Amino acid sequence: MRIIYGINPVTEALAAGRGGISEIFISVKRRDKSLDAIVRAASSGKIKVTGAGARRLCELAGTEGHQGVVAVFKGEYPYCGIEDIVDNWRASGKSAFILILDCIQDPQNFGSLVRAAHCAGADGVIIPKDRAAQVTPAVVKASAGATEHTLIARVTNLRDAIKRLKDEGVWIAGIEASFDKTIYNTELDGDIALIIGSEGSGMRRLIRQECDYRVSIPMKGRINSMNAAQAGAVALFEVRRQKDARTQKEAGGG
Amino acid sequence: MRIIYGINPVTEALAAGRGGISEIFISVKRRDKSLDAIVRAASSGKIKVTGAGARRLCELAGTEGHQGVVAVFKGEYPYCGIEDIVDNWRASGKSAFILILDCIQDPQNFGSLVRAAHCAGADGVIIPKDRAAQVTPAVVKASAGATEHTLIARVTNLRDAIKRLKDEGVWIAGIEASFDKTIYNTELDGDIALIIGSEGSGMRRLIRQECDYRVSIPMKGRINSMNAAQAGAVALFEVRRQKDARTQKEAGGG
Repeated sequence: MRIIYGINPVTEALAAGRGGISEIFISVKRRDKSLDAIVRAASSGKIKVTGAGARRLCELAGTEGHQGVVAVFKGEYPYCGIEDIVDNWRASGKSAFILILDCIQDPQNFGSLVRAAHCAGADGVIIPKDRAAQVTPAVVKASAGATEHTLIARVTNLRDAIKRLKDEGVWIAGIEASFDKTIYNTELDGDIALIIGSEGSGMRRLIRQECDYRVSIPMKGRINSMNAAQAGAVALFEVRRQKDARTQKEAGGG
Repeated sequence: MRIIYGINPVTEALAAGRGGISEIFISVKRRDKSLDAIVRAASSGKIKVTGAGARRLCELAGTEGHQGVVAVFKGEYPYCGIEDIVDNWRASGKSAFILILDCIQDPQNFGSLVRAAHCAGADGVIIPKDRAAQVTPAVVKASAGATEHTLIARVTNLRDAIKRLKDEGVWIAGIEASFDKTIYNTELDGDIALIIGSEGSGMRRLIRQECDYRVSIPMKGRINSMNAAQAGAVALFEVRRQKDARTQKEAGGG
């Protein structure tokens, strides 16, 4: 049984329409426009809505940060496979844009990175099954519900997944803390998968070896790095910028 | 009396050399390379170092997240004035790059934004005195110590501060959640101050009216926004990218 909590997560789960919600618990005390909209969306989707007190909501959510709403799903989080992400990319008719997370540990960072990937228009996110944050209720909350719209593939062997993408002609760009080549002087507008390493130690050696490019975000100042979620957002939006610039150029030139 | 806690904050406070540290308390149990480096730096700066147990460190820090070290300062956080930021910019010989935060509430976001501003090479950060997160120990921690290197001006009237910058020829660019003009199709490579609004409601009306440009970060996907810290990092690094591109072009052309 999977649960999610919070206004954005439940709103986005209903909007995404992936199904699987068996029941929504909603505060009997706290009511506002967002919660009312959730009740309406649930009703039109024929999903059972049950009133609950604060204690019940805390028990279900496992936190006080439930914002008055908890959704209970029949199954687990619907991780997809690599092929689904490849299909999603091919169906878009655009160049590939995939985010690979090599062992992000912190649920807040993981959620934020999924949110940024979704906002930047990525085709999907790939995470390893072990030694990495998984899609927990806290991650869904940190993503503002973006997990419910985004294809997230969970793989046992990240290196095999990278090789699979290479077979499809995707270039692999790993973000390094410091490196001569930067995201600004490297062409990232083709079929690309961006790798972000873990908060402490970056990409693992075997993953780094699979990179076609290794690039950094050039840093000024005395502090040597940003946190993984911010660095990821900067890199994701630089890929987006380059892709859009290329699309505009080609449209102008054709 | 001001305190800061955590390895990065104390390390950066010592490196910044702004002075004012009266005593450093360090764990008697936990020792590692980073803590040893702090002890050495403190000694060479003639700062008193005192061993402390876990309970004492928690009491001083007000949290368990002290990582074995707490620094106590004689005075409060050394906020600067607008003039110091203007002087810093003028001394750099480069174009202005200032971050204005219009009522950021969350300490984590505030700290992250200061960190990103420092890493992007901004001349300083301006915050309002009221209705906004101030430089607390949690903010210093979230900034990874960047607050100790960065000029942060705290002003009673943000609008007057903006007008002061305009008098200096600085252009004011406010980030909007959605707007036709984007950070990518707007020239942000001159003397610029970037405004980020509060997490919930963006810039206040009177602040918005002072903007020379209003620009958005174009978003794909179904979720309409990133969090303030990520959006800020993306905007700050786009300003950095444009400034560096212009510098390179001018160097190449000259």
